[in-house]
Amino acid sequence: MSVGEIMVRVRYAETDRMGLLHHANYLVYFEQARTELLRSKGMTYKDLEDEGHLLVVAKLEIRYRSPAYYDDLLLIRTKQVRTTNVQIEHTYEVLRGDVLLAEGSSTLACVDRDGQLQRLPDKLTEDT
Amino acid sequence: MSVGEIMVRVRYAETDRMGLLHHANYLVYFEQARTELLRSKGMTYKDLEDEGHLLVVAKLEIRYRSPAYYDDLLLIRTKQVRTTNVQIEHTYEVLRGDVLLAEGSSTLACVDRDGQLQRLPDKLTEDT
Amino acid sequence: MSVGEIMVRVRYAETDRMGLLHHANYLVYFEQARTELLRSKGMTYKDLEDEGHLLVVAKLEIRYRSPAYYDDLLLIRTKQVRTTNVQIEHTYEVLRGDVLLAEGSSTLACVDRDGQLQRLPDKLTEDT
Amino acid sequence: MSVGEIMVRVRYAETDRMGLLHHANYLVYFEQARTELLRSKGMTYKDLEDEGHLLVVAKLEIRYRSPAYYDDLLLIRTKQVRTTNVQIEHTYEVLRGDVLLAEGSSTLACVDRDGQLQRLPDKLTEDT
Repeated sequence: MSVGEIMVRVRYAETDRMGLLHHANYLVYFEQARTELLRSKGMTYKDLEDEGHLLVVAKLEIRYRSPAYYDDLLLIRTKQVRTTNVQIEHTYEVLRGDVLLAEGSSTLACVDRDGQLQRLPDKLTEDT
Repeated sequence: MSVGEIMVRVRYAETDRMGLLHHANYLVYFEQARTELLRSKGMTYKDLEDEGHLLVVAKLEIRYRSPAYYDDLLLIRTKQVRTTNVQIEHTYEVLRGDVLLAEGSSTLACVDRDGQLQRLPDKLTEDT
Repeated sequence: MSVGEIMVRVRYAETDRMGLLHHANYLVYFEQARTELLRSKGMTYKDLEDEGHLLVVAKLEIRYRSPAYYDDLLLIRTKQVRTTNVQIEHTYEVLRGDVLLAEGSSTLACVDRDGQLQRLPDKLTEDT
Repeated sequence: MSVGEIMVRVRYAETDRMGLLHHANYLVYFEQARTELLRSKGMTYKDLEDEGHLLVVAKLEIRYRSPAYYDDLLLIRTKQVRTTNVQIEHTYEVLRGDVLLAEGSSTLACVDRDGQLQRLPDKLTEDT
């Protein structure tokens, strides 16, 4: 099981009228965390996509436990928890220091340029 | 149970490199749909918030079934399915014509300006 | 000279910690206004792009005069003020009722899929 | 004159249907670069704002010279070029390696919580 961590600083543009990180932006951080997890394994999502393996989000769950604020430095921890022939499952934790702010999970499906399901490339299934 | 529908045109800025509506933007559409559902009942979320009743997203689930594209005219259907003293649950459907593109659900919690849970105002619990 | 107007409701996700429409989102509204201006002339930007005519922003100026707030219903007025063989210039006004909130201008360049400048299609230059 | 540089990796969510960094997101990068320039001088914009000094964008210009792509690692260089009693002017450059992709400038005005112009705090005018 591969695990990765990134640090993200909450941008002003990502906050909302409540002064908090807007809830939709957690999904953008999750995506960035997945990207960096791949990079840490010697791949880039860009190359995957350019080779015709598109990973689309099929399912996503998130539980917001405590708010994140402007300028917070957050740790996003991602685990690739399960991989089938055509899908990858990740879990996510968002932390500020020791405080768990949010938790989530996602299922990605591998499709071709026409949106048809296809097998994940071997390099993605081998090293989970 | 209250139900509302809005039409949303997918903006160019909301698409991504795959040419699809980026998955995080569905959450923005859901939020807009909740706002308009409130408005259809004679309230505005702006007033609610200005009166000290902040509705924060506590939980969110979404299942992406089929992609939405740039310039698509989407229907977002929202139902307020359950209301407790401090929480509101909604479900969502995203449709292009007859095709169901995505489904979701969310739980909102009512907090005060300090982030403490508080009772929902009566006008929100009565008319579910 | 073609002129178009759209109404846009400021979304919660588009506000920031100050409670205002974040300044970057005006550009998204401008883009949406250009898109609808084209549609009002019987074209869609989607078709243009699918035919290989990509309009990229080459230059943009904006003056923010007065803030826009969450849930404001704004009018975005766009004028296609000048068209050359390869460029289109627009101006923009953002109004809430009679109040001018912002003004801007942009220059779009027509490029092909490889990013090379190309002539605008006739239908874009004729009807200015 | 103070100068600062940050590196920003283009996120998937920030790209658009053309596969490029969407033009509105450059403004978000500029804002992040200003924030980090302040931090490098021992201040945070968050504190400034919490002390009642809000910096709002009054004017902005940007020239897009060459596109930025998904996963590009960009350098954003910011200079605080001029400071008056109530305004700060910055210039910006966006580079990928040696290639200048975009240039911009902005004028920020200092306002209080009611949006009224006020003098910049001394710490912002002294160290330009």
